[in-house]
Amino acid sequence: MQKLTNEELGRPDLTAYQQIKKLPIILILDNVRSALNVGSVFRSADAFRIGKIILCGITAQPPHKEVLKTALGATSSVPWEYDKDTLSAVKKLQSEGVKVYALEQVQESISLEDFLPQLPATAIIFGHEMDGVSQEVVDLCDGSIEIRQEGTKHSLNVSVCAGIVCWELHKKLSHLQQ
Amino acid sequence: MQKLTNEELGRPDLTAYQQIKKLPIILILDNVRSALNVGSVFRSADAFRIGKIILCGITAQPPHKEVLKTALGATSSVPWEYDKDTLSAVKKLQSEGVKVYALEQVQESISLEDFLPQLPATAIIFGHEMDGVSQEVVDLCDGSIEIRQEGTKHSLNVSVCAGIVCWELHKKLSHLQQ
Repeated sequence: MQKLTNEELGRPDLTAYQQIKKLPIILILDNVRSALNVGSVFRSADAFRIGKIILCGITAQPPHKEVLKTALGATSSVPWEYDKDTLSAVKKLQSEGVKVYALEQVQESISLEDFLPQLPATAIIFGHEMDGVSQEVVDLCDGSIEIRQEGTKHSLNVSVCAGIVCWELHKKLSHLQQ
Repeated sequence: MQKLTNEELGRPDLTAYQQIKKLPIILILDNVRSALNVGSVFRSADAFRIGKIILCGITAQPPHKEVLKTALGATSSVPWEYDKDTLSAVKKLQSEGVKVYALEQVQESISLEDFLPQLPATAIIFGHEMDGVSQEVVDLCDGSIEIRQEGTKHSLNVSVCAGIVCWELHKKLSHLQQ
């Protein structure tokens, strides 16, 4: 089992990637504290052809040094924008017909494996490392998605959560061609 | 949609968790450079009831400060051991009947969504952040699993990979009760 070289992997370069049709998925980072986590989310979004990232509140923006450290260039390939206020970002998306879901452990949440992305687009909000998505943002959402877990800890790392969500939604939308 | 409190989530405490039957899944970290990544893998392993982590080579071991920082206590709940040599760790597991797979982009890899964990147990090897799993370790494995990706970058962050693998195998083994 020979490991594949970069050439054999056939990854698109930046120009080719920008021409590829992205998945109708938007990631919203609601006051994510760690810039390293933000960079890691960019890297996952690049790998799974995510449409856009919206950075809100205290979430660090490129070209923050620690974002670049873990994004490894994905801040150039993944479209992103900044909105100081998460509530207004959510309202704007909803006014455009986008369905918005919090990734949160709430009453009546939908388990990630059962969640079907909505068209024309679906946005998923990931929250602060300690506080999660704020209750007032959750209240505004069209629903909540939960990654069921069985361990001693309250939750998973936020960039790991984003990676799992990207993986699962990418699988479910794999019929949408590039 | 009210956010759930820690009490409502009903997470087991350390003593209760240690009594729970774990999944027959072993994670092997083969020369993972970043102690922050190691801690994050512990946290995901705790959440998804993984059986054991084997730390090899230069991979940092608890109680390394940066491992503890991202593990948030999961180094106490997840059984782990250290083996200086990844090859000997793999051979030992195989002699016990465990099937060992590298998470690597190789010729003839199995896509993660198609992979079925083997009994009595399955071990998955995650490699160095830049170099991946070494070719000589890959050569010893029973197979390779790949997370298919479409971005400009070579690969995902190693702790994100581990989180996705834990999520997917936990789903596939959910019929195995605690």
